[in-house]
Amino acid sequence: MCPPGPGGREREGFEMNETMVAVVGNVATQPVYRELATGASTRFRLAVTARYLDREKNVWTDGHTNFFTVWANRQLATNATASLNVGDPVVVQGRLRVRTDVREGQQPRTSVDIDAMAIGHDLARGTSAFRRAKPGEAVTVAGAGAAGQPEPDWETPGADAGAQRHPEPAAVT
Amino acid sequence: MCPPGPGGREREGFEMNETMVAVVGNVATQPVYRELATGASTRFRLAVTARYLDREKNVWTDGHTNFFTVWANRQLATNATASLNVGDPVVVQGRLRVRTDVREGQQPRTSVDIDAMAIGHDLARGTSAFRRAKPGEAVTVAGAGAAGQPEPDWETPGADAGAQRHPEPAAVT
Amino acid sequence: MCPPGPGGREREGFEMNETMVAVVGNVATQPVYRELATGASTRFRLAVTARYLDREKNVWTDGHTNFFTVWANRQLATNATASLNVGDPVVVQGRLRVRTDVREGQQPRTSVDIDAMAIGHDLARGTSAFRRAKPGEAVTVAGAGAAGQPEPDWETPGADAGAQRHPEPAAVT
Amino acid sequence: MCPPGPGGREREGFEMNETMVAVVGNVATQPVYRELATGASTRFRLAVTARYLDREKNVWTDGHTNFFTVWANRQLATNATASLNVGDPVVVQGRLRVRTDVREGQQPRTSVDIDAMAIGHDLARGTSAFRRAKPGEAVTVAGAGAAGQPEPDWETPGADAGAQRHPEPAAVT
Repeated sequence: MCPPGPGGREREGFEMNETMVAVVGNVATQPVYRELATGASTRFRLAVTARYLDREKNVWTDGHTNFFTVWANRQLATNATASLNVGDPVVVQGRLRVRTDVREGQQPRTSVDIDAMAIGHDLARGTSAFRRAKPGEAVTVAGAGAAGQPEPDWETPGADAGAQRHPEPAAVT
Repeated sequence: MCPPGPGGREREGFEMNETMVAVVGNVATQPVYRELATGASTRFRLAVTARYLDREKNVWTDGHTNFFTVWANRQLATNATASLNVGDPVVVQGRLRVRTDVREGQQPRTSVDIDAMAIGHDLARGTSAFRRAKPGEAVTVAGAGAAGQPEPDWETPGADAGAQRHPEPAAVT
Repeated sequence: MCPPGPGGREREGFEMNETMVAVVGNVATQPVYRELATGASTRFRLAVTARYLDREKNVWTDGHTNFFTVWANRQLATNATASLNVGDPVVVQGRLRVRTDVREGQQPRTSVDIDAMAIGHDLARGTSAFRRAKPGEAVTVAGAGAAGQPEPDWETPGADAGAQRHPEPAAVT
Repeated sequence: MCPPGPGGREREGFEMNETMVAVVGNVATQPVYRELATGASTRFRLAVTARYLDREKNVWTDGHTNFFTVWANRQLATNATASLNVGDPVVVQGRLRVRTDVREGQQPRTSVDIDAMAIGHDLARGTSAFRRAKPGEAVTVAGAGAAGQPEPDWETPGADAGAQRHPEPAAVT
């Protein structure tokens, strides 16, 4: 069963007083693509690691890592699935959504989602060749078969972040 | 035992690639103040409710509520404890921190913290009389006794958000 | 003549793809309050000074200062005028608006505005006593006479930022 | 003469209390690349157009456009120059810098810069093929010749934003 998420809702308009975030991190799990009644939806885990200056040693060191589940809809879902691979450095802008599921006899479970409005490969780490989507064009989602793969556990940090890095970015044609 | 949190760490410098957030919401639990080895620390739950336009009915309606645990240190901790009450509308700026505790035989527990850099009463909802802290001045923390109150459950949403609103803001003298 | 600004427009709804900012700084000019056909409006200059670590001397030093013209409307305009004084430390959240006026035979003039959604006294620097506005209550704007004062030059940085600090915050009753 | 800008300064560390922004817009002028004593630097104009809902007509309409000069340094400068073309939709995260030059006998001139930390092609508008930069690899900057082109006027809005769209994204090899 598909867990309830931003992808399952029609979000036509906008809301006021949203918690907007912009984060720079790495794709931690392969995007999972779905066709829903409301349109295309994709999601992946994102690892955002702070860097701090160790003033005694005077070196930059990895700090805390925040993990988010990033959701994308419609055209952004299709293009993200076709473009993103595990390990890719990305910048993501969107709405933060903290959800707590309370089920009888269980600990409440909290998930931290970003309902993405924009996602891009971070040019601080490499180059990108961009191809603008033409209106009405059906982009072939090479990774769409991923929907048939066993589900990653969305609630725990993707321990494999950056581990199973694809040797080559998927060709986009 | 004091749960591990931003209040328990020395945070002298800064970090790069932090997830910064600015949120407008309501204080959901009375701030709990503590004197730690690293200095003053306070924390409270914050409820941030989006508002969306119902386009069929053409009215603004409450949307999803994000709950955060806001942590403040040092002078900000002291002043926040002296100034904030349950129900107060506030604007908070700080670093977002998503933490997942994994304990054997249990579901992982996720908490969503904001390590506050600035907190202020939202003037969109009322007026505030400000009194600048003098360097070295010992501010009396009127609400410090709150530290002796039974602990709210930090992991589940404060269901009482805005419910037990104080009729009068605490005098600050 | 009143320069065109966010205060002069009805802004009932919202917009997508706005540039949101949250800044922590000091009120640089006394808020100027006006009653417009569209409701109350106030504006003031805000100075936001970065702090950087001089790694050779290992001390924090003042960096660049950004100046903004902050606009507030309706209830936020009334409460900000009643609560804010030159020198006050504040946190401001709102929409950034860069406007360039091109007039024949003149250099184009650029102004950088924040259309505020929330403003609050920064509790990192002092305490505040908050009084919630009651619906329909007519708040007396003590500083409204400021509208009759000579206009500050909104385009050049308020050089007097923090200079003419009021000894006492205005009483709010 | 090259106007003073963020590209001309060594920015090794970080600063506190910066004004961070994340914007989604379109590249309005071809990036101009330079080798400075402090390393690679590039800059371009960015157009960020808000969209608002006209509630009477119930259609989304273009709102105000903010123009920024985006500056990138080092690896980000090299990769941005190799990857970006006029008209490209991008998401940019960085520090906002409002600068006012006062020269004798002239109107003060204000420029609004973003000192970019991350830039990416917006996947909401198309697909991107990413190629991670290898450490020490000398990326050939195809567009570096642009530095020899006549300078765009950085102070006035790039009226040609999106007009001279390249039919094909530059090959990245």
